[in-house]
Parts: sequence; structure tokens; C-alpha cells
Amino acid sequence: MRAIVLLSGGLDSYTAAAIAKADDPGGLDLYALTISYGQRHAQELEAARRVACALGISRHLELAIDLRAIGGSSLTSNAPGVDVPRDRDVASASDIPSTYVPARNTIFLSLALGWAEVVGAGDIVIGVNALDYSGYPDCRPEFIRAFEALAALATRAGVEGARIRVRTPLIALSKADIIRRGLALGLDYGLTHSCYDPGASGAPCGRCDSCLLRAKGFAEAGAVDPLLR
Amino acid sequence: MRAIVLLSGGLDSYTAAAIAKADDPGGLDLYALTISYGQRHAQELEAARRVACALGISRHLELAIDLRAIGGSSLTSNAPGVDVPRDRDVASASDIPSTYVPARNTIFLSLALGWAEVVGAGDIVIGVNALDYSGYPDCRPEFIRAFEALAALATRAGVEGARIRVRTPLIALSKADIIRRGLALGLDYGLTHSCYDPGASGAPCGRCDSCLLRAKGFAEAGAVDPLLR
Repeated sequence: MRAIVLLSGGLDSYTAAAIAKADDPGGLDLYALTISYGQRHAQELEAARRVACALGISRHLELAIDLRAIGGSSLTSNAPGVDVPRDRDVASASDIPSTYVPARNTIFLSLALGWAEVVGAGDIVIGVNALDYSGYPDCRPEFIRAFEALAALATRAGVEGARIRVRTPLIALSKADIIRRGLALGLDYGLTHSCYDPGASGAPCGRCDSCLLRAKGFAEAGAVDPLLR
Repeated sequence: MRAIVLLSGGLDSYTAAAIAKADDPGGLDLYALTISYGQRHAQELEAARRVACALGISRHLELAIDLRAIGGSSLTSNAPGVDVPRDRDVASASDIPSTYVPARNTIFLSLALGWAEVVGAGDIVIGVNALDYSGYPDCRPEFIRAFEALAALATRAGVEGARIRVRTPLIALSKADIIRRGLALGLDYGLTHSCYDPGASGAPCGRCDSCLLRAKGFAEAGAVDPLLR
């Protein structure tokens, strides 16, 4: 069976793709979609290419859409004074931080839906996680179910009776569990990139939400992050 | 109140925006979003700029996303042998034609949703029409309602209790009724562009679904299309 995976180059989407593949006994034919949306750094895209190669992806499509024009996020802004937050208490923070990109997962899933219809994929795999995450609304299970309901009505395939399923293998896992599953599957997290705002050297800042959640996950999994070796 | 209008440069979105504005006694502050998605011709974008100007749009954002990479539509293909269908019987055809662009309205509404959240717009106006249309699944009322349900879950604004409404002033109108309403509002349809595949001169082909539906609409409204004068 064919599936589209939204692949960012981060740890989560890499693991989600690998779990989906491992869970499919018939062999999953993975098509990867990476969106270049004006995030602060290009390293994510390079990591996505490395990860796609490691996963044995059949096709890797990179689409560009400049969400900086829409704005509303510190993740897509280079404006002076608009910084990615650092040193937040990610374990207990409950607000939605400035790195939230308005409607990002809706946009990404819509693009994946279009491609799924064209290539006849029945599944879309997305590495959203509603446990150790930054509180983004479009990572929650109820959002995913609403998107599936929309997908059934949105496409020619849907009209003809096909259902596109959105698979979220990480949605109920802690970051530590994600890393444990990935390591058990033999994944090389040295290929990935998580930092929201790396310095000129490309090294992770260690202080943004994404770095902090990753560090917490590796610590709780009792593993060493290969990026920090 | 502020609203996003998806403005293509065609007759429908122009009229939808004008009706939404006329229907809002408090005065609607319209922000127009035009998506350049790799359609066959650039004339649509020029028409969108003319129409935005005529409507007194506060801001006009043009976003580019190359849906040709996704494929699956004669509207975004320049491949030899992939042609926009001509001379179809648009009044009675019931199949979904090759000009269908997979998930297009889902993608467009998602982008509008992101911008709506950033600028605090409560409404998205879209000129879909489920009567005199080409049978596209993402023009139907049930699709629009499903998108509204998704929007309520997808965004920070939704989490905080705001509802984004998708307004479809044309959804139950015939093409003739759309044109009658527009003419009554003083719209200049000479500014618009409808043809899916104009020749090098820019003149409408007169034979694609879009030209045929437009001609049928003007004929039934008893009006002359200024583009054909």
C-alpha cells in the first residue's frame, strides 16, 4: 500500500514514518512530502533528505510555500525583536507559544491530501504528538479526526468512496517513548534536526522548546542524543 | 469586521466579495488572498489585481505554491496531450472533469485560515457554487461545513473560542443569478478573467467549461459579456 508521509527532517516525523512502515506487514510504499515554508533555517530540509534516504522513500517531493507572507509566528520571522522563546519550562507550560504557525498542519495535510489523491495513497502519516509537545492546537486527536472527515468530502477519491486515513503513530507517546521505539527500530537520530533556531555553526541551541523537549526525551529514555556527542 | 476573501480574478469570487460587502451593514474590511498555483496562465493573477482594486480591498496578498509538482489536473499541466476539455455539455455533465485540481479548495481555505487567524478576521469568503459548476467535490455545502468544523479545532483562535465562518454567498445561485446580482451591484465583469486556457492573444477560448458556463450565465441573465464586446 502507498502512503504519504509528511517529513520535516525532525525526530518525530522520522520515527512516525518508521513505525508506520514497521506496522504494515504488507510493506508500505512511502512517498515523502517536505514543505519548505520559510522556517528560519534550511537545515531542516537537508535533514529531511537524509532521513528520506535512510527510510528508503520511493519519492520525495519538496514543495515551497512562503508562510512568512502570512506571518504570525516567531518560527517564520526574521524581524528584529521577534525571537524564538528560550528556556521555557516545557514540562509544565500550558500556553501556545509564539512558535505556533497559524494553520500549519491544516495547510500541510491539505497538500498531502492533494498528492495522496494523485498517487492513489490511502494513508497520510504525520508525526504529531499530543503529549510532549508545545501545545499546538493542530496536534490534537480531535483535529486529526476533523481533517479525516473533511478529506472524505474534499476529493474526487472521497466522492468515489475511497477513505483517506490520517495515521498518527506518535500521538499518544511521550517523547521518551518515541525515542525508545525509534532506537529499537534502528533509527539514526544523528540524521535529524530539531532546533528551531540553530546558530551559524548549525549546532542546536539547546534552549528552544524543540531542543528542550528532545533533551528531556533522550534523558528519560536513558539514551544519548547523537547530535550532542 | 474583517474578512478574508479568496480572489481568483474570475467572475465568481469578484461577485462573492461584492455580495459579502453589500450584505454587511457595518462595512466589511476585505483582505484578499490570491494563490498563484501554477495554473496555465498568468492572466488570472492580473485580473485578481484589477478586481481587488475595484473592490476597495484593504490588503491583497499573493501567495505562490506550485501545485504542478503535485499534478493530477489538466489545469496545472503543460504536458503534451494533457488538454483542458472543450465543448463539453456543461449543463448536463455529471462527471468530475480533468480540470479538477486535487484538494485545491482545501489548500486555499487552509491558507486563508492561517491568514485569518493572524489578522483577526472572523470570516472567509469563497465564491464556490454548487449549481452551475463543474462538479468539483470541494464546492459542495457539506465540504464547507466540514471545513468550518476543522477550523474551530485547528487554530489558536479556535481554542480560545473564536469561530471562523466560511461565507459562500454564491453556493445556491445559478450562474445567471450570480451575474444578475453582480450587475445590480455595479460590477464591471470586463475586469475579470474566466477562461481556463486562453490563447496567446489572451482572448477567452469560448470552449472550455469555464467559458461555456460563463456564456450560459450571461445568456440566461439577458446580458452581454463585456469581454466579448
